[in-house]
Amino acid sequence: MSESILFIGGARSGKSRLAEARTLQFGQPATYIATAEAWDDEMTARIAAHQAQRAGSAWHTYAAPRDLVAALHATDSSPRLVDCLTLWLTNIMLAGLDWQVEGKALVAALAAQSAPVVLVSNEVGMGIVPDNRLARDFRDAAGRLNQWVAQAADEVHFVSAGLSMRMK
Amino acid sequence: MSESILFIGGARSGKSRLAEARTLQFGQPATYIATAEAWDDEMTARIAAHQAQRAGSAWHTYAAPRDLVAALHATDSSPRLVDCLTLWLTNIMLAGLDWQVEGKALVAALAAQSAPVVLVSNEVGMGIVPDNRLARDFRDAAGRLNQWVAQAADEVHFVSAGLSMRMK
Amino acid sequence: MSESILFIGGARSGKSRLAEARTLQFGQPATYIATAEAWDDEMTARIAAHQAQRAGSAWHTYAAPRDLVAALHATDSSPRLVDCLTLWLTNIMLAGLDWQVEGKALVAALAAQSAPVVLVSNEVGMGIVPDNRLARDFRDAAGRLNQWVAQAADEVHFVSAGLSMRMK
Repeated sequence: MSESILFIGGARSGKSRLAEARTLQFGQPATYIATAEAWDDEMTARIAAHQAQRAGSAWHTYAAPRDLVAALHATDSSPRLVDCLTLWLTNIMLAGLDWQVEGKALVAALAAQSAPVVLVSNEVGMGIVPDNRLARDFRDAAGRLNQWVAQAADEVHFVSAGLSMRMK
Repeated sequence: MSESILFIGGARSGKSRLAEARTLQFGQPATYIATAEAWDDEMTARIAAHQAQRAGSAWHTYAAPRDLVAALHATDSSPRLVDCLTLWLTNIMLAGLDWQVEGKALVAALAAQSAPVVLVSNEVGMGIVPDNRLARDFRDAAGRLNQWVAQAADEVHFVSAGLSMRMK
Repeated sequence: MSESILFIGGARSGKSRLAEARTLQFGQPATYIATAEAWDDEMTARIAAHQAQRAGSAWHTYAAPRDLVAALHATDSSPRLVDCLTLWLTNIMLAGLDWQVEGKALVAALAAQSAPVVLVSNEVGMGIVPDNRLARDFRDAAGRLNQWVAQAADEVHFVSAGLSMRMK
């Protein structure tokens, strides 16, 4: 069974950069499994900025806004970076899919991989309770998904200010 | 003097589950001191979900939405889990009570217990500054209460994604 | 080259108090470089409360809402505490200055100091994505500034509930 590693941290905490470096330790080229969808100019700019960081021959990119399980099985010959779980969860919920079913399928798929998988996720539960129910439900789902993936992972790192502390 | 232990983390970080396990290490049955009040359907569902996790004979439940000091003194013959301080603070403030007076009384009560007390609390200060003053005041109070309880505690654990790091 | 040390944590996490104690370990009197500006009654009260904590002869105060580089050079004969970077960034952005230019100048100035510098900053990226673009941009800038300063620092501490974990 392969290794799976989770980097969890805040927005702009540097978690993607740390996760990229960790993925490349397993060898090159690696596959960047992108869950982001560019639905407006702001998101397009964010995706482009992240892609610029990965310029060069070290990475293949595989777009998987929703079907992460298929993406993992299709790329199981190289180290993978899944960036990020929080956007994937957003896409799942916006598409009206059952995030618990999808989340459990993801955890099962992780256990079935041969090549390593590094995953990036956001800690979103350390602010004030959001005003609206939708945001609270998302926060709950994100927190539970993080717990599931962390439980399945071999290594978990907590990230702030570009630095990490190993939790597992 | 008894041991007191604090688990602090985000929403849905798994802190309650870790705190439950830690409490039961001190022996069974333990007492679950619930500070949640079911004032709407959403809250009722959250409370029921938490109760389902504790099904079985290991736990007695003691409701204490506001009078936590009395609850601690009434249950000082078994290990206790206070879940959670952040909801208790909310109840205190909604009732128009002085949270600093109540918080200091709580810290004094902790020092006077014979049986262990495990407490759960939320880190709520790691998001963007809230728009409204009430939320900012609550955030300040929650942060200060966490500091007071952490200072009084023998052990403090920081929780994210179902995993903990010991801070004290 | 001098030492620089970063304390990063949530609102009311006790990070200022820990940073004050760390600064005074380098000797007295130390200089408190205050970035807060009192633009309303609430802020005036917050500043007064922080000043009351530092009463006595151990501290000189130097106000630097925007020109932190000049403040560092003007005070390079004693240990300094910069409290805090997040308010400084707010002031920079409100003044219409380029935070990236200012942030890079700050990092360069840190490397040129003779006396130690302790800095306080907020982790603001662990809540739900803010509704408005301005808040998201601020969150991004704060996260990146924290990464830059943490990379330049010799020591970085993550703070919650008045306790710290060393990240670097």
